[in-house]
Amino acid sequence: MRTQVAIIGSGPAGLLLGQLLTNAGIDNVILERTTKEHVLSRIRAGVLEEGMAGMLDEAGAGARMRAEGLPHDGFDLAFDGRRHRVDLYGLTDGKRVMVYGQTEVTHDLMDKREETGGLSVYEAANVRPHDFDTDRPHVTYEKDGREHRIDCDFIAGCDGYHGISRKSVPEAAIEIFERGYPFGWLGIIADVPPVSHELIYANHPRGFALCSMRSTTRSRYYVQVPADEKVEDWSDERFWDEIRSRLPEKTAEAMTTGPSVEKSVAAIRSFVAEPLRFRRLFLAGDAGHIVPPTGAKGLNLAASDVRYLFDALHEYYAEKSSAGLDAYSEKALARVWKAERFSWWMTSTMHRFPDQGPFGQKIQHAELDYLFQSRAALTMLAENYVGLPY
Amino acid sequence: MRTQVAIIGSGPAGLLLGQLLTNAGIDNVILERTTKEHVLSRIRAGVLEEGMAGMLDEAGAGARMRAEGLPHDGFDLAFDGRRHRVDLYGLTDGKRVMVYGQTEVTHDLMDKREETGGLSVYEAANVRPHDFDTDRPHVTYEKDGREHRIDCDFIAGCDGYHGISRKSVPEAAIEIFERGYPFGWLGIIADVPPVSHELIYANHPRGFALCSMRSTTRSRYYVQVPADEKVEDWSDERFWDEIRSRLPEKTAEAMTTGPSVEKSVAAIRSFVAEPLRFRRLFLAGDAGHIVPPTGAKGLNLAASDVRYLFDALHEYYAEKSSAGLDAYSEKALARVWKAERFSWWMTSTMHRFPDQGPFGQKIQHAELDYLFQSRAALTMLAENYVGLPY
Repeated sequence: MRTQVAIIGSGPAGLLLGQLLTNAGIDNVILERTTKEHVLSRIRAGVLEEGMAGMLDEAGAGARMRAEGLPHDGFDLAFDGRRHRVDLYGLTDGKRVMVYGQTEVTHDLMDKREETGGLSVYEAANVRPHDFDTDRPHVTYEKDGREHRIDCDFIAGCDGYHGISRKSVPEAAIEIFERGYPFGWLGIIADVPPVSHELIYANHPRGFALCSMRSTTRSRYYVQVPADEKVEDWSDERFWDEIRSRLPEKTAEAMTTGPSVEKSVAAIRSFVAEPLRFRRLFLAGDAGHIVPPTGAKGLNLAASDVRYLFDALHEYYAEKSSAGLDAYSEKALARVWKAERFSWWMTSTMHRFPDQGPFGQKIQHAELDYLFQSRAALTMLAENYVGLPY
Repeated sequence: MRTQVAIIGSGPAGLLLGQLLTNAGIDNVILERTTKEHVLSRIRAGVLEEGMAGMLDEAGAGARMRAEGLPHDGFDLAFDGRRHRVDLYGLTDGKRVMVYGQTEVTHDLMDKREETGGLSVYEAANVRPHDFDTDRPHVTYEKDGREHRIDCDFIAGCDGYHGISRKSVPEAAIEIFERGYPFGWLGIIADVPPVSHELIYANHPRGFALCSMRSTTRSRYYVQVPADEKVEDWSDERFWDEIRSRLPEKTAEAMTTGPSVEKSVAAIRSFVAEPLRFRRLFLAGDAGHIVPPTGAKGLNLAASDVRYLFDALHEYYAEKSSAGLDAYSEKALARVWKAERFSWWMTSTMHRFPDQGPFGQKIQHAELDYLFQSRAALTMLAENYVGLPY
């Protein structure tokens, strides 16, 4: 088989890239290691920047998001027993974010792909990118007991942090920057109305907490826990007690509790691979970089990578120019590092660190205090939260 | 002897407080452990916020500063081989800073004190504050072989980090917050014209550097060095070579070198004592808090403490109200912590840290990059640099 762009990974990055390519008449195939159902069962982020929401529209997959997503004009930071609102809309000249689950994004993009006849191969085992340092790359995979080969012009590695794409690059050709954090997020989903119509990020002596939602009837809540915490140790009751203890009293009292429908611990990590391009292999999304979830930048960074990569591929096929492809890595990484900085800052400001000591806690407090006394500081937070320009 | 306010320490904090009190007809005595000449030989900060410059005017000691000081509308940050200007004036609606050495401030305040007949006791040995937790405090000291006693209403501890005032407070009554940094500043003064008419703060792989000045003919330069660095190991030539290696090429080429007239290594530290009031003893300036020198907040914090403390004492004597005195510690500390945060941030952003690793360096770089792409971020820097409101 031959295609123009072989895409490894059927998450939001691969699907969004594939759809933009399909719409532009550029042939592409998506190879996915697991099943459609497995991809859809992954529960991830749920706050979309306007840039990403616009790309879903552009892909023709934005209708349900526009109908069912929840546009948010702001969010709250809670500390010292009080909630303080960040007026995103007012601070950024009318920008908002869209609360809409990654699962739904993936679902809508899969539906669109099916509708427009894009080829996705699920349960493609042992996917391997080959010869991407030559002008004739190809990808192999196994399915139904046979090995398959796809010849292509370019390979897009959209297969996440654990995927094969980045791992196929010789170690000497790639530089890794990373930082671990001494905690994780224990998250639950429950079919109860969210405690507030906007998100609440809480800094509390017991640790960070986040009140988020998927819809007006489905809540998504998190608490900071030690990195090695076991989800089995957390009954629903313990979770509800813990999150309420970290929220301002009135908020805690207003919280509706109920049985969890999902409960898991996520590790928190900062990670960037440089560069993101290896001649004819391009990394996009989690394959190239991971951010801590504070500030919800992960999914949005995948979208900005796809923005740059699609524009570059489109330019290549429409104008026979490689300029965009040559600039991809640098352009994408410039935005990635700003989001890494913001996610690191918001994580550092909102969590308890075992080694921060009394001085570090005071600095954290001064940072939060200052935010709500300086329009410049709050604007800095807001402009990053709604997303820096592409 | 009896006075209303006994002031321990004849640095800028004690002198400024004393002068404002004298001008308001409130009797005060300054006790200084060393000689006038010794105080004047201390070479310290040299960037005054407008608030502090205004207080010198208010004290009647601002004339020479207005004539000889250098008003600065901005400064440069240098990184990646380029200088980037921070337009303080444009970003803060017309605020500037005043470059005028601490030694000169001290000199002018001493002259004013003499002119207005304020009493300063120099070489007052073994100064001790007593009974400040009662309504009848007093201070003792030794001079000319005799012990002296001053009865007073209040004691102002303006005697710096190593002074007796803070150390006289029972340990249990005071909480200390501190952080050390794994480096110091090696600074020189040379009678050569400054390389630029504004300050240059440089972030460089070899470490931080700062180009500052005292006047148009006297330069003040610094380089980051290991904390245990010995000044004897630094010939003038080595210093000039080192600082030039950390500056953009054109800046280095433009630098005029010459023999140093002073050379020393300063330790870098963050330190805050809480509270700043112990019934009738009040700490102001370095006696209560230390900031790293990056951003030049130390002297200015002493001035803001004096602002709050003088207003409170004036209110006490003029209106028989203790409200200002009761609020002093909280009010002063709120501003102190914001300056501690800023100084810590600017130190963290501009220096090399042995343990920051490649990720930390990238974050630092992203921070600097972002600053010059976001008016909000640059405004945040500028508004802190010119000084937050009192």
